[in-house]
Amino acid sequence: MKNIALLLSYVGTSYHGWQRQENAVTVQATLEDALASLTGKAVTLHGCGRTDAGVHALRYVANFKTDCSVPAERFPAALRPLLPNDIAVSAACEVGEDLHARFSCAKKEYIYKLYAGPSPDPFLYRRAHYTPYPLDVELMDSAAACFAGTRDFRAFAAAGGSVRSTVRTVYECHAEGDEKSATIRITADGFLYNMARIIAGTLLAVSRGKMDGGDIPGLFENGARENAGVTAPPWGLYLNRIWYKDGHDLTFSGGDGA
Amino acid sequence: MKNIALLLSYVGTSYHGWQRQENAVTVQATLEDALASLTGKAVTLHGCGRTDAGVHALRYVANFKTDCSVPAERFPAALRPLLPNDIAVSAACEVGEDLHARFSCAKKEYIYKLYAGPSPDPFLYRRAHYTPYPLDVELMDSAAACFAGTRDFRAFAAAGGSVRSTVRTVYECHAEGDEKSATIRITADGFLYNMARIIAGTLLAVSRGKMDGGDIPGLFENGARENAGVTAPPWGLYLNRIWYKDGHDLTFSGGDGA
Repeated sequence: MKNIALLLSYVGTSYHGWQRQENAVTVQATLEDALASLTGKAVTLHGCGRTDAGVHALRYVANFKTDCSVPAERFPAALRPLLPNDIAVSAACEVGEDLHARFSCAKKEYIYKLYAGPSPDPFLYRRAHYTPYPLDVELMDSAAACFAGTRDFRAFAAAGGSVRSTVRTVYECHAEGDEKSATIRITADGFLYNMARIIAGTLLAVSRGKMDGGDIPGLFENGARENAGVTAPPWGLYLNRIWYKDGHDLTFSGGDGA
Repeated sequence: MKNIALLLSYVGTSYHGWQRQENAVTVQATLEDALASLTGKAVTLHGCGRTDAGVHALRYVANFKTDCSVPAERFPAALRPLLPNDIAVSAACEVGEDLHARFSCAKKEYIYKLYAGPSPDPFLYRRAHYTPYPLDVELMDSAAACFAGTRDFRAFAAAGGSVRSTVRTVYECHAEGDEKSATIRITADGFLYNMARIIAGTLLAVSRGKMDGGDIPGLFENGARENAGVTAPPWGLYLNRIWYKDGHDLTFSGGDGA
C-alpha cells in the first residue's frame, strides 16, 4: 500500500465542514467519493483538521492509503474532472507509511479576513467577515500579542470539543492591514474547538472598543468562556498552512508547498 | 421629479447580464424591483452599459427618476435589505435632470482578469479566466498598445450589435501582472458588442504564441472577425469605471467615486 498526501484548497461555503457525516455534503465525503471512483476502491481520507461548516482552506493536507497503480503526481489532473469547482487538488506526493495528515502535524496556521466600509462588498460575500466600523489594526495587533505562548485556552474554546487538555502553544498571533481590510494570523501547535474564531471575535471587540486588550491576560486566568469575545462567523476563516513533524517532509512538486 | 444616480457593484455569475428580459434574472430587473418596493412605484433604471451574462461590475452607474421623498443618500442603506448579496449599492446622489447613465457617458474602463498555474483556483472560479499556460505579460502588453487610437474595430466585434458606426477610440490598452496572474485594462469612449472580450482573447492568443502581436494592425485593415482571437469567456470581465461628459459631475459621498 502506498501512502499518498494531497495538497488541496476549497471554498467552504457549500459544505458542512470537512468531516464526513450522514445527510450532509462535506469536503471529505466529496473527495473520498472522487478517489473511490478514480481508484475503484473505497478510500479513507485523513484530513489535517476538522474545519467547520463555511470555513475555507488555502493549503489543506490530507492522506490516504491505496494500492492503485496511478503514480501520486498524476492524482491532481486525474481528480480534476471528478471534483466540483470549489475543491481543487493542486499537488500530491507519496509519503512515508506512518505519516498521518492530522496526527503528524506539528503546527497549523489559520488566517481570519475582515473588512469594513460603508456597505458590504458582493465579491467578499462569504469570503471575509464584514463590519461597518473602521478596523483599528494597531489596537488589534497589540492585543493579539497577548495570545502568544503556552497557555490554557479554555476561555477561548466552545463546548463540544473532546480534548484531554485545553493547553495549546500559540507561536504567532498578529493583525495586519488597514482600517478597511485586515487579516488576523494565528499559528499554533493545535486549535481547540472554535478557538481561532473566538480569538478573532475577541480582537474584533477590541477594535470596536468594546473590550480592552489589557483585559485579555485576565481572561486566561479566569478561564470563563463568556468573558471572551463572541465567536466570529465561519466565512472569514481560512486554514492557511500546515507544518509536519521532523522526518515527515512533504515535497509537493508543482504545487506551492504545504 | 428627482434624478438619482446609483453607484453599484455586482457579481455577474447568477445573472443573465444587466438588461431586463423575459424569463431570465437580470441585474436591472433585480434593482428595479427593489426600487419599486422602496418607492412604491414602478421605476425605470438606466444603466451605463449592457454587460453580458456572467460579466461583473466593480463601479457601475445607473440612474432613475422618482418623486419619492427619500433623500438620495439614504438609498444605499434602504436598498440593502431588498437586494441579494451579489448586488450592492455603495453610494447614491442627486444629479441634473438631463444626466443619462448611458448616453452621458464619456469614457468607460473594463478590466479582464487572467490567471495561470498547474490547476484552477477554487477561489477564482467564475471570477477570472484560467489558463494552464504561463502568461507572457510583456508580449501581451506590447500587443495591447496596438489597440490604442481611433480605429474601425469591426474585426473585434461580434455580430448582433446594432450600432451605426464601428469606429471607437481606445484611450488606453495595457496588460500588467506576471506569469501567474494578469489584468488587461481597456479604456475607451465606447465598446462594440463583445469588443473587450475579443481584445482579451486576442491578447491571450499572443501570450500563447498562437498569434503575433505584429499582425494586429493587419487585422484592423482586413476587418474580418475570424482573423482575431476567440472571444474570451465572460467571467474574466469587469466593468471597472465610468467617466461622464463635462457638466455631469457625479459626486458620490461615502462611496469610492465613479
